Amino acid sequence: MSLKNFKIVLVSPLYGGNVGSVCRAMKNMGLSHLVVAAPAHPLDVEEAKKMAMHADDVFAKRKEFPTLREAVADCGLVIGTTARIGLYREHAQTPREFAPRLLAAAEKAKVALVFGPEDNGLSNDDLMLCTHMMRIPSSAKYSSLNLSQAVMVCCYELYVMSGLWEPVVEKSPEAPSAMRERMYDLWRAALLTIGFMKEDKADHMMLGLKRALGRGTLTVNDIRILTGMARQTRWAGDELKKAKAKGGHKA
Amino acid sequence: MSLKNFKIVLVSPLYGGNVGSVCRAMKNMGLSHLVVAAPAHPLDVEEAKKMAMHADDVFAKRKEFPTLREAVADCGLVIGTTARIGLYREHAQTPREFAPRLLAAAEKAKVALVFGPEDNGLSNDDLMLCTHMMRIPSSAKYSSLNLSQAVMVCCYELYVMSGLWEPVVEKSPEAPSAMRERMYDLWRAALLTIGFMKEDKADHMMLGLKRALGRGTLTVNDIRILTGMARQTRWAGDELKKAKAKGGHKA
Repeated sequence: MSLKNFKIVLVSPLYGGNVGSVCRAMKNMGLSHLVVAAPAHPLDVEEAKKMAMHADDVFAKRKEFPTLREAVADCGLVIGTTARIGLYREHAQTPREFAPRLLAAAEKAKVALVFGPEDNGLSNDDLMLCTHMMRIPSSAKYSSLNLSQAVMVCCYELYVMSGLWEPVVEKSPEAPSAMRERMYDLWRAALLTIGFMKEDKADHMMLGLKRALGRGTLTVNDIRILTGMARQTRWAGDELKKAKAKGGHKA
Repeated sequence: MSLKNFKIVLVSPLYGGNVGSVCRAMKNMGLSHLVVAAPAHPLDVEEAKKMAMHADDVFAKRKEFPTLREAVADCGLVIGTTARIGLYREHAQTPREFAPRLLAAAEKAKVALVFGPEDNGLSNDDLMLCTHMMRIPSSAKYSSLNLSQAVMVCCYELYVMSGLWEPVVEKSPEAPSAMRERMYDLWRAALLTIGFMKEDKADHMMLGLKRALGRGTLTVNDIRILTGMARQTRWAGDELKKAKAKGGHKA
């Protein structure tokens, strides 16, 4: 699913640094359309660029509108974000609950995610222009998120749900049983050779070792390393025996 | 599930403002133990407090250790975060994939989430101390997240998965069918009275109205408002008829 129809709309943001951080969060999560509605005063452009880092293109391409009404005029769904509970705010859903619906709607029309000013959030007048409310889960002890952090969480949920993210594929596959057992056989012989265990305790010790090494995934690469260690341990044990035999040391 | 056993470990953070933003993100998501490992230079405390806002208690209670090894000495799982792919980094899982396992582990022992410096991330030496790697999904066009944004996404996933978040319960329940149908009956009568439709088209129009109003949830409160509007519309239509009858206007 595409994210090109999403707009991040900031209403009267106070700090250029926050706007820059919003740009970076957006680009990290594959979004590119930033809109500033009802700018309270000229943005601190230097501070914004500093925080945007390599997302300065998102900042440069931002659009500005004198009112929120104009900023969202071409949008189907208009989602207001809020940390507060109260009038019009009971129906808020979380970004995770909303994401599938927003992505489906964005296939057919523009979708706006609207964020209020840092100090007070969206006003009731702003909320009247929103079709839905969204609220990010947060602790009752401190529920108010930094503006760019709030944008990050919302964009992150859209990005993860969009399917645009291709997880890194494990390059080395889970090793086949035969390879794994050969490795354990080599360790059995090596541990007997260096005197770590005696034959009568070997089965019990090997069970412990298998449990310790087998809790997670053992890939082909993992087995190669462990096999090499076992071989060299066996070799060292054999060499030690030879040296002792030559030098006449006691076993 | 509790979040008290989680530690956020920042290795040699460069900017006090970022450390402050990390504190705020942590408190927003119910975490409280911040550790700074291998501090590169004294932190800009004023900048940190400014960005921490009401999370200055998290900043004040932070612990500092000269090395990462000491910082995570008491931790069971030690999770390194990385944006890069490469040596030791292929096995990275996402915060969402990891969250259930981390929460289970944190029931029994401390768990560290380790974040590298802003410019280069965790070094290979740092990664050697980690039991697992975590990677936040991000766009290939700009995969490097701001430090505090990365902390936010990780803490957010833990918080959401912890079950500590109690979603706001819809206060007004979905209206029962009888209440909904009475409302539609009132609208039918009202719309006939004001001449919006004639009797032969009424069923068809009402079907359209039901479809338009019924796409989402209609709560008891919603129905009360719509019922009031229908009654008043009906009243206005009746009054208009009376006025016309009196004044001798044409219908």
